[in-house]
Amino acid sequence: MEFEGRKRIIIEDVEPELDCGHFPAKRVVGEKVVVRADVYADGHDVIGAALLFWREGDPPRESRMKRLVNDRWEGEFAVLETGLYFYSIEGWVDHQHTWLKDLRKKRDAGQDVRADLLAGAAHLEAAAKRALPEDAEKMGERAMMVRDLVDADTGRAVTLALSGDVRNWMEKYPDRSFSTRYERDLPVIVDRQKALFSTWYEFFPRSASEKEGKHGTFRECERLFPEIRRMGFDVVYLPPIHPIGSTHRKGKNNTLPAQPGDPGSPWAIGNSEGGHKSIHPELGTMEDFLHFIKKAEEEGLEVAMDIALQCSPDHPWVKEHPEWFRWRPDGTVQFAENPPKKYEDIIPLNFETGSWLPLWQELKGVVFFWLEKGVRIFRVDNPHTKPFPFWSWLIREVKREYPETIFLSEAFTRPKVMYRLAKTGFTQSYTYFTWRNSKRELTDYLTELTQTKAKEFFRPNFFANTPDILPEFLQYGGRAAFLTRLVLAATLSSNYGIYGPPFELLADAALPGKEEYLDSEKYEIKNWDWDPRAGIRDFIARVNAIRKANGALQSTNNLRFYEIDNEKMLFYGKRSEDGTNMMLIFVTLDPFTPQSGLARLPLEEFGIGPGDPFLVHDLLADDRFIWQGERNRVGLDPRVLPARIFRVLTRMRKEADFDYFM
Amino acid sequence: MEFEGRKRIIIEDVEPELDCGHFPAKRVVGEKVVVRADVYADGHDVIGAALLFWREGDPPRESRMKRLVNDRWEGEFAVLETGLYFYSIEGWVDHQHTWLKDLRKKRDAGQDVRADLLAGAAHLEAAAKRALPEDAEKMGERAMMVRDLVDADTGRAVTLALSGDVRNWMEKYPDRSFSTRYERDLPVIVDRQKALFSTWYEFFPRSASEKEGKHGTFRECERLFPEIRRMGFDVVYLPPIHPIGSTHRKGKNNTLPAQPGDPGSPWAIGNSEGGHKSIHPELGTMEDFLHFIKKAEEEGLEVAMDIALQCSPDHPWVKEHPEWFRWRPDGTVQFAENPPKKYEDIIPLNFETGSWLPLWQELKGVVFFWLEKGVRIFRVDNPHTKPFPFWSWLIREVKREYPETIFLSEAFTRPKVMYRLAKTGFTQSYTYFTWRNSKRELTDYLTELTQTKAKEFFRPNFFANTPDILPEFLQYGGRAAFLTRLVLAATLSSNYGIYGPPFELLADAALPGKEEYLDSEKYEIKNWDWDPRAGIRDFIARVNAIRKANGALQSTNNLRFYEIDNEKMLFYGKRSEDGTNMMLIFVTLDPFTPQSGLARLPLEEFGIGPGDPFLVHDLLADDRFIWQGERNRVGLDPRVLPARIFRVLTRMRKEADFDYFM
Repeated sequence: MEFEGRKRIIIEDVEPELDCGHFPAKRVVGEKVVVRADVYADGHDVIGAALLFWREGDPPRESRMKRLVNDRWEGEFAVLETGLYFYSIEGWVDHQHTWLKDLRKKRDAGQDVRADLLAGAAHLEAAAKRALPEDAEKMGERAMMVRDLVDADTGRAVTLALSGDVRNWMEKYPDRSFSTRYERDLPVIVDRQKALFSTWYEFFPRSASEKEGKHGTFRECERLFPEIRRMGFDVVYLPPIHPIGSTHRKGKNNTLPAQPGDPGSPWAIGNSEGGHKSIHPELGTMEDFLHFIKKAEEEGLEVAMDIALQCSPDHPWVKEHPEWFRWRPDGTVQFAENPPKKYEDIIPLNFETGSWLPLWQELKGVVFFWLEKGVRIFRVDNPHTKPFPFWSWLIREVKREYPETIFLSEAFTRPKVMYRLAKTGFTQSYTYFTWRNSKRELTDYLTELTQTKAKEFFRPNFFANTPDILPEFLQYGGRAAFLTRLVLAATLSSNYGIYGPPFELLADAALPGKEEYLDSEKYEIKNWDWDPRAGIRDFIARVNAIRKANGALQSTNNLRFYEIDNEKMLFYGKRSEDGTNMMLIFVTLDPFTPQSGLARLPLEEFGIGPGDPFLVHDLLADDRFIWQGERNRVGLDPRVLPARIFRVLTRMRKEADFDYFM
Repeated sequence: MEFEGRKRIIIEDVEPELDCGHFPAKRVVGEKVVVRADVYADGHDVIGAALLFWREGDPPRESRMKRLVNDRWEGEFAVLETGLYFYSIEGWVDHQHTWLKDLRKKRDAGQDVRADLLAGAAHLEAAAKRALPEDAEKMGERAMMVRDLVDADTGRAVTLALSGDVRNWMEKYPDRSFSTRYERDLPVIVDRQKALFSTWYEFFPRSASEKEGKHGTFRECERLFPEIRRMGFDVVYLPPIHPIGSTHRKGKNNTLPAQPGDPGSPWAIGNSEGGHKSIHPELGTMEDFLHFIKKAEEEGLEVAMDIALQCSPDHPWVKEHPEWFRWRPDGTVQFAENPPKKYEDIIPLNFETGSWLPLWQELKGVVFFWLEKGVRIFRVDNPHTKPFPFWSWLIREVKREYPETIFLSEAFTRPKVMYRLAKTGFTQSYTYFTWRNSKRELTDYLTELTQTKAKEFFRPNFFANTPDILPEFLQYGGRAAFLTRLVLAATLSSNYGIYGPPFELLADAALPGKEEYLDSEKYEIKNWDWDPRAGIRDFIARVNAIRKANGALQSTNNLRFYEIDNEKMLFYGKRSEDGTNMMLIFVTLDPFTPQSGLARLPLEEFGIGPGDPFLVHDLLADDRFIWQGERNRVGLDPRVLPARIFRVLTRMRKEADFDYFM
């Protein structure tokens, strides 16, 4: 009989376990994994617990867990490399510690403890058999001394039995022969730090030419890197760079038919010049693209590619692999539709084809093609219209060889679907941020993202706008609205991005009644003003510099909302894990009228005494104030600046900060 | 390759799943199991889902689930027999319904639908292959008609394709070839109805003699049944009835040594006359006990036995199976202790013995011995000091042969441990009710029990007192306190009990500073007054009659708290599942001073219009009121009655209730 009835320990409610261990929790290199679980046994014996952890392929290591309250235990381990880690828990009934605890109580009560001393000697002798040689000898001697003195000098025997070294030995060599191991090994996927802290700039390379109406090239894009870098971005994300189909090509403002010279939507991928592994000739050659990547890298920018797994009717696959598409009874290929709407320039792949495996392999080939060119960030277009098992397989295959790869899920769809994509493997995710404007909406949504289980697997990337979405708030709120949304995106979430230059240049003209840009760049070539003084480029540069200088803003789950008595003002803060960097942020959600509110500051959380004065430095306006006490009134004028980003400095901080107080 | 890439459905977050399917949810015969889950796929296809369910050993049945909001689906099945049921979920992408939906939209938009009609004919033909013969023929004919009319009379073809019978066929014969089955079969344990609705009366049979100081017998107990029944109880629970040890026997008020004639604690089980399978000779013979059970049954009472897995030092096992006990280095057997306290009349079993398997088997033998005598309810003493795996095994073994058996867990210990015992298999559980007295405490605790996952596995049994606990509130609150706690126990929880006659007789004398009865019956024989008019027996009879007559009070999880603006008053309600029985209960928690409060009635929940008059009948005081509107003031005078138990009657109720309005 395999079953062992003497295993008495229960281990349950382990966090961060996701869906019975099905999905890994997410961390980045350098973070800690804090593990908590209920660990207990029947009865009143003392128990012990250890956290076991290892990087895939490595031997397990372990550290002891400590007891919190209500049978909850905690342990932690650091993750120092990218890849897959695992952890589990082992618990045991600790008769040695039960004995120590009882002996102490009985001695204090003046009871006869001679039998207990003999039991203790036996514990020591048994533990000595599990001990390192240098300890084993001393433990054996101690057991003998206790036995010898039990009757002769009981008091001295008790002292010897309760000494610090006996406690240490008991701690070091527990009897784990009937220990219980938690039934699952739980996974943690560790990404590079950029997975958690990244600043994205999306732009259309075809609009990079200095000449009005001319199609831009990768070479021409390179001149923009210094300004993109000056604004503080570290990822440049390009819409698809592949040949564009001509059949049913969309013209300006999404109209049909296209006029001669209309460049078409880059998401209608493929024509006779190639498909997902080719480059649109007007952008340049493969050599130009490789040069572009290298040049970006030199400027501290990383290139993110778009993966849009769909075709124009002219894509080579349509002829070469008709079995990967749906065909209508009339012999035509099935285009994308959401009846009664038709998207005839786009043909979806049929993931229910009998040839799904060759299809999967070809798509994997596409991703590996670009990985081999040096791309390590992919923004995946509409992942929610392809099967989850496909993504799960693809991302696992990629991460096995290139664990540093980042996949951003572009899914604005049902909440369950968005979360599932993140669990399935996407490193970062688009969010509903774009449509959360009121205090209640923002507070509820961010609380869900950072305080529920979602925080373990869903890493938000807050885009303030995209080529598909010019939010209503930006359409009517003017400059203040742009500043507000930028500060919110940049300080609520450690990953955020904008689609520029329309964002910096405060472009706010939309198609009537829609959140679509008027004269959208998706269907035409633009000539943007790249003057560093144009629009709000300096403001963006300042916000991003603040993010870079303040570690607290480089995480998302450390966000906490605080009280302010104005429904149009948001007050929140972030604190770095070591407590050295503390930020308090005030934002007005009203782009028109000055607002002020009385805030309740989180003094205790920030380690500030109720009467202690402390310095707050508004890093946006470069204003400094000395504050004291829990209550402070803050005013914001959206015509000047709709936000304050305070760094909090107290006398307890390190020497270097002291000059602030001079 | 086993893996099928075309299975696109995701099924997750299934309720009532407990700990990844490790533990069964609990239901009683006649209840419904409502199953909810997130079911969805990538993309925008219509999907379908079915609930599969079966009683252990039976073939699976299925019913279709319906979509709620946010990708949540719901189905249900009834459980009509005791034993183990299982359920699971199957989901599929429903191309037939997607086709129907799209066709309708395209027709409404006036688009060319000829290709869609041909696709529909193909769907019909494919579905016909899965259909019953009588449908298959019609479906084939319909497909042919649609094909014939596609070009000739498109309008007519559309009408034929969108007709009700096509919808029905599509619903009846979905293509489930790439359906996804949820990865686990989830268990539900179904108990008899008494598991959910029971009224317990605990008493010491040895105090049943009419003669002062004489040891009572089972025969003498039988004369008490009519009064216990009149009070409305349906379970009589007896402390252990086995021979009692004499070594270290406890005397009156838990003192040592016992005086000659002291009967000892019945929990010190076993002496030379026998152990757990024997009957204390002074109570009678085995025949007397069998007669007692039969007699109780005739009175509508069921006997619950105490299972206390521990021994007196004189128990036969100590000599016969020394390997089942711990022995101290001085050669004496280890008694129970919680240093510095000693319980030398009790010897715990050593579940860590190498002979744990024979020990488990012997203990199972004890339970089966009494099962074979006809006992089907066991109150288990201190289950939290024996290993969880033992209980899990024992209860499973018992329920396999006697699925109607009820185990009540007597554990007043740490919350996680109490919950785990319930998950492990205990049918009912002791609770912290005894120590929850304020409005906040009661509301929080009952909300936890009835609104969180606990409701699926933890069935509370609210004891108002026990031989071990005379709660402080009863010690100082007088008669009103007893009435209050009785009403709370009896109406908050559908399972409740009292330890009598001390409860009915308002016994409130405790050991100083303790919650222990003074002159506790645990250590001496009592002579109680059994006059039906004594104490609050009539009141108890009335409360229990109300429980019996009102189905809403026979469940616990239907409890809802409502608003009343007085911190000393509790206002809550219960509604039967079919809505025919609606109860509103007001209780004052202040046993001294009259209280009144303005209540907000749950009109909408109870289906009462804002202006509709309705009748409330206070079944305790037999007062009737016509109320109208959401707000009503209720006053309670604890010197009269500290509670009102209203039955709510509206004109929408059945004929028979109408005379209330005359």
